[in-house]
Amino acid sequence: MTTYDDVQRAAIQIAPLAFRTPVLTSDRIDDLVGARIVFKCENFQRVGAFKFRGAYNALSRFSDEQRRAGVVGYSSGNHAQALALAARMLDIPATIVMPKDAASSKVTATQEYGGNVVWYDRYTEDREAIAAALAAQHGLTMIPPFDHPDVLAGQGTAAKELFEDAGDLDALFVPLGGGGLLAGTALAASVLAPQCRLFGVEPQAGDDGVRSMREGRIVTIDQPTTIADGAATRHLGHLTFEIIRRFVENVVTVTDDQLIEAMRLHAGLMKLVVEPTGALGLAGVRAHVKSLELRGARIGVIISGGNVDLDRFAEMIK
Amino acid sequence: MTTYDDVQRAAIQIAPLAFRTPVLTSDRIDDLVGARIVFKCENFQRVGAFKFRGAYNALSRFSDEQRRAGVVGYSSGNHAQALALAARMLDIPATIVMPKDAASSKVTATQEYGGNVVWYDRYTEDREAIAAALAAQHGLTMIPPFDHPDVLAGQGTAAKELFEDAGDLDALFVPLGGGGLLAGTALAASVLAPQCRLFGVEPQAGDDGVRSMREGRIVTIDQPTTIADGAATRHLGHLTFEIIRRFVENVVTVTDDQLIEAMRLHAGLMKLVVEPTGALGLAGVRAHVKSLELRGARIGVIISGGNVDLDRFAEMIK
Repeated sequence: MTTYDDVQRAAIQIAPLAFRTPVLTSDRIDDLVGARIVFKCENFQRVGAFKFRGAYNALSRFSDEQRRAGVVGYSSGNHAQALALAARMLDIPATIVMPKDAASSKVTATQEYGGNVVWYDRYTEDREAIAAALAAQHGLTMIPPFDHPDVLAGQGTAAKELFEDAGDLDALFVPLGGGGLLAGTALAASVLAPQCRLFGVEPQAGDDGVRSMREGRIVTIDQPTTIADGAATRHLGHLTFEIIRRFVENVVTVTDDQLIEAMRLHAGLMKLVVEPTGALGLAGVRAHVKSLELRGARIGVIISGGNVDLDRFAEMIK
Repeated sequence: MTTYDDVQRAAIQIAPLAFRTPVLTSDRIDDLVGARIVFKCENFQRVGAFKFRGAYNALSRFSDEQRRAGVVGYSSGNHAQALALAARMLDIPATIVMPKDAASSKVTATQEYGGNVVWYDRYTEDREAIAAALAAQHGLTMIPPFDHPDVLAGQGTAAKELFEDAGDLDALFVPLGGGGLLAGTALAASVLAPQCRLFGVEPQAGDDGVRSMREGRIVTIDQPTTIADGAATRHLGHLTFEIIRRFVENVVTVTDDQLIEAMRLHAGLMKLVVEPTGALGLAGVRAHVKSLELRGARIGVIISGGNVDLDRFAEMIK
């Protein structure tokens, strides 16, 4: 099993190239929510999302042969950009399978970073099968978006930095899609903050995480429809779920309307552009601070990313 | 004359309460502009703008008698919020003369911080006279938005932090309204970075700074109409102009369209909500990097604030 040692090794591996993102606070949000929140701003990470951490960590461990052949991945957007940029930095050819309806800013950035984009339809096609076929055909190494030891260990470095910079936290809220960020966070917390209560936050329309925690097994749901494109996953990963079930207290959900309200607070009171998935943490704290008996507590929130098309963002916050 | 010693004293005075704001970079903006830019993010300062620095520095030096009587100021918005919050922290009553068409987010925040708002019409009334009358009538101390030694020394602490955190810079671009931020910056640069070329950036519609530099005297213009409400001043201050003419290489202008384009870059590529005035620096670099022979240079930009009504912001970036 992946452990905190792997997160520590990832931190050293990515240190020269990943940003140590700032931790911000807002008195006006604290007053509104009734808790003291510290925000880890991964929207300022390279490629605009935490995904750079895991992708760079994974690719930097490739053998010479793997580097020459190249990498293939699949992603709704942020892992795509992350793979493309990390691959360019390491001079590795990158092929990315992306949904036809991905945010155009994410597609543009992936292509600008030199990624070769292959399209699929997220409602009718199986992206993992497409990527696996490309890998077999061309001898590429597949780096999935979350269920990979090097990827999730890399994602854990964000929480490691947050614990180092912010000190003691009573609870930590983390956006939950396939579970890479939450599992990595859990590994960091297991050693650095074992008393900190951990919560995953997912969109209500895609509540596979809630159900998986309740049933003690990975529950697969139909493709959810939500503005939180980065968390519109159908199921957790095997590696991520094993870690999450062990260290995470629970998974909570929020509606798309609550996400939009959180995006408005991030923009209006914190001056941050946050994508819908990135606002899961604040939305989760607002919706559940009372029922989880966290009023007055010191709470960490990971803002996972800020990649949203400006016209859609404008439509949401106006 | 105010000197760097005053900036140093201000830094100590405000350290317990002002944020040391982060310095951010963006490879994609660097590629686009053709220079390496470091951004000092004062949109993350308390009240969402650098103005907290000067206001708190000034109010914290009040005598007991001044504190009891209270403070009066005038401002289109950010100095208003800054005075109101600093006064609340120091338990000083605050009255603020604000234009009727001020950004409603700025008015709301000023009132939430406990400021007593008095309205005026920016096209027909003289705000300084209104404030002076209130000061005389009620024994209040007037703290103007820029032409005051403690205010401009406080504003200089932002550049002091930037020089400390970012190292050597070939040039620094600073939004210019009444000149408080630019004069304070010049004092910081005069000791910490005497080789750094300094530029003020103002809206084309309100080019009193350009004209004042050219004519070697304070030129007063008609009330300008520009989206950069924080820089819609009619003239520089006496104290600020003396410092600016001595240390600043020149003042450049940008159009409102260039400001909107810079706001879009801040939002899309840096995930930052920046108000029109706050985007003067990046817009100024983009427009003048070539003519000032700064291609490839290492350039600092102060993002002065992020206080813009969300509906107007949405309209501008969509």
